[in-house]
Amino acid sequence: MNVAPAHFASVDRLIALPFAADQGTALVSPATVGWTRAKTIRLVTADAPFGLELGGRLGPIDVEYETYGILSEGKDNVVFVAHALSGDAHAAGWDTNAQDTGRLWRARKPGWWDAIIGPGKAIDTERFFVICPNVLGSCYGTTGPSSIDEASGAPFGLRFPKVTIGDWAELHARLLDALGIERLYAVVGGSVGGQQALEMALRFPERVERTLVMAAGARLSAQGLSFNAVGRTCILNDPNFANGDYYGKDPPAAGLASARMLAHITYLSDEGMQQKFGRRLEAGTSAPGGGFGVEFAVEGYLAHQGKRFVERFDANSYLYLTRAMDYYDASVWGGGDVTEACRRIQARVLVVSFDSDWLCPPESGRDLALALIKSGKKVTYANLSSRFGHDSFLLEPETVASIVNGFLSN
Amino acid sequence: MNVAPAHFASVDRLIALPFAADQGTALVSPATVGWTRAKTIRLVTADAPFGLELGGRLGPIDVEYETYGILSEGKDNVVFVAHALSGDAHAAGWDTNAQDTGRLWRARKPGWWDAIIGPGKAIDTERFFVICPNVLGSCYGTTGPSSIDEASGAPFGLRFPKVTIGDWAELHARLLDALGIERLYAVVGGSVGGQQALEMALRFPERVERTLVMAAGARLSAQGLSFNAVGRTCILNDPNFANGDYYGKDPPAAGLASARMLAHITYLSDEGMQQKFGRRLEAGTSAPGGGFGVEFAVEGYLAHQGKRFVERFDANSYLYLTRAMDYYDASVWGGGDVTEACRRIQARVLVVSFDSDWLCPPESGRDLALALIKSGKKVTYANLSSRFGHDSFLLEPETVASIVNGFLSN
Repeated sequence: MNVAPAHFASVDRLIALPFAADQGTALVSPATVGWTRAKTIRLVTADAPFGLELGGRLGPIDVEYETYGILSEGKDNVVFVAHALSGDAHAAGWDTNAQDTGRLWRARKPGWWDAIIGPGKAIDTERFFVICPNVLGSCYGTTGPSSIDEASGAPFGLRFPKVTIGDWAELHARLLDALGIERLYAVVGGSVGGQQALEMALRFPERVERTLVMAAGARLSAQGLSFNAVGRTCILNDPNFANGDYYGKDPPAAGLASARMLAHITYLSDEGMQQKFGRRLEAGTSAPGGGFGVEFAVEGYLAHQGKRFVERFDANSYLYLTRAMDYYDASVWGGGDVTEACRRIQARVLVVSFDSDWLCPPESGRDLALALIKSGKKVTYANLSSRFGHDSFLLEPETVASIVNGFLSN
Repeated sequence: MNVAPAHFASVDRLIALPFAADQGTALVSPATVGWTRAKTIRLVTADAPFGLELGGRLGPIDVEYETYGILSEGKDNVVFVAHALSGDAHAAGWDTNAQDTGRLWRARKPGWWDAIIGPGKAIDTERFFVICPNVLGSCYGTTGPSSIDEASGAPFGLRFPKVTIGDWAELHARLLDALGIERLYAVVGGSVGGQQALEMALRFPERVERTLVMAAGARLSAQGLSFNAVGRTCILNDPNFANGDYYGKDPPAAGLASARMLAHITYLSDEGMQQKFGRRLEAGTSAPGGGFGVEFAVEGYLAHQGKRFVERFDANSYLYLTRAMDYYDASVWGGGDVTEACRRIQARVLVVSFDSDWLCPPESGRDLALALIKSGKKVTYANLSSRFGHDSFLLEPETVASIVNGFLSN
């Protein structure tokens, strides 16, 4: 796969982007930030609760985050990384506490964007101070529905307030305040993280110098809403769900697994699945006809993805975070008009889509780029060629590294 | 929407098809075949059971079917219509027995292809004798998992043998034998019905003069297999499923509804859903934030589709029929090669795809057409423009009528 100028869509105006396509391979290296240790900070106390966008107040709130690299004296080298739906603060390196916290998958592999973040990599930790916080409502250290509600002494469950990407941005701005960071050199994110990157630039225009929105648009389509809705019904219908009060008992594993299997299909592309699995039978299956379990290899793969997900994710968090994704609509900053909304932005923006992404299709990224152009902003739009669909921002490290590096270089 | 020559893909060779584009509107009229009455025929008896493609024997087997029009003296005017996954034998007109059989939806609307089948319509019942039989494994009159197993006196449930589209074709050939019909003027079908239409031409080359394969290809893609797999997990995980023995008790309604909601997304297009629903809120919802139930209009629509489906369909049948769809692979007639398989065919073939269909995308239809061309067959391929996705063969009556009419006219 190459990032050739031909992949840049023809839009009204393009900012030249001297990205390092020729350095692609070099940017993805075994270099690592090493052992990491997540920090937790109480950003909101019980006596001064946080007002949520959709109503209600919440406190205390803890936020888990990781940082890599060294904050410059002028605090002008901060790259904020926003994670995706099932992501966490552990974006790079190897988690020192993987065993102690029971997050065993972190002992088996490095952070989710380790190919991009590290010494000499696209987000170069020898130059940048990288910060990646976990979002409100998640199950990875930041307060969420599985956290203990101090008022009752029991986990929140569905009594947790509804959260939005706006809430994530507000809370993470408080984290930056706590660290004494006024301005961000860049905000970078893919998928829901791309929505948060966009929201940061809209909500805090004076604090964000560069925004990179990958595999995301101004809002989810009706089809995207639909897939999230069906995934949630799988969880809500699971008899173990117990209206969200399943902590300490059998969790709604089957429902969450089905939701993940469904979502996983939307993260890949038809072509990618065809190349990887086609109609091949699962190993050990000599001929189809056995029944309704796993017979085709792609069924085995999806079942495996579902099984692994329930080992690491909380079903209530899945409900809350997919709803945050549903609710996100950048146009609210412009009275329902994305172009009007974009007028707020001061950051330079790079919008990246992937041609095989059908969950947030190229049109979605291009429409956002066009709105930014119409509102007179500095924006570049790149539609990259990949067979990996929506997950390309995770699965195409060389291409993503070169374009991220190019965007951060000037 | 127009059917213009431009919609015909450029393939190596095209047979000219004088379809009646200018008659389009006239072909879709209120004319009706009138009141219909499904017939049931015992095609297989207990003492001579039917050998199934994937093993096992089954008998007795009843098949429900409807016919419209008059069989000519030479029995040379038979059009065989193959229904889709959740379809039935009631393809046209108004069911006389809707109330008595509890198939109440048939009292509210005419047969599923009433726009295409009738006097003066594309499949003109003043000229053709139309026959539409229900498939093996369904829940609409032909023997299936909800039928009583005479050996035990109880419904089959999961003890019903696995069925294939090959089995459907074999059984329906026996129906034709029983009616004294040797050759078919045409076989026509969409989606799984398109797969059956193709299979009829492959399995009984000497009996099929024309085959129209709509919204289908030689086999399902890995992505298609995946959606079916997730839908089945929704049913299998429903606690009411009870390993298929839920008859007389609460059925796995929630699981079947989720499966249908998911499938329904794949029957529509992103563009079509966006135009119809966008991000509009459900009537009565003033602002998002209420929870995880229906808030967006598209969620209400899908929930409604799921609810209606469980009123009329059997969950076990859903498992069996989606598996039949999964298993279908036309290439088995050519040792794994579709082109080799197509050499068997004697029928003229029209392959129709729809540009917004992403479940059986245009490439799938085009690949089949190319295989037919390479094997020296008479084939036409048309990729029609529609915003209705996979379901276009049901939702674009004017265009479908004109192309069906053209194909049957010569």
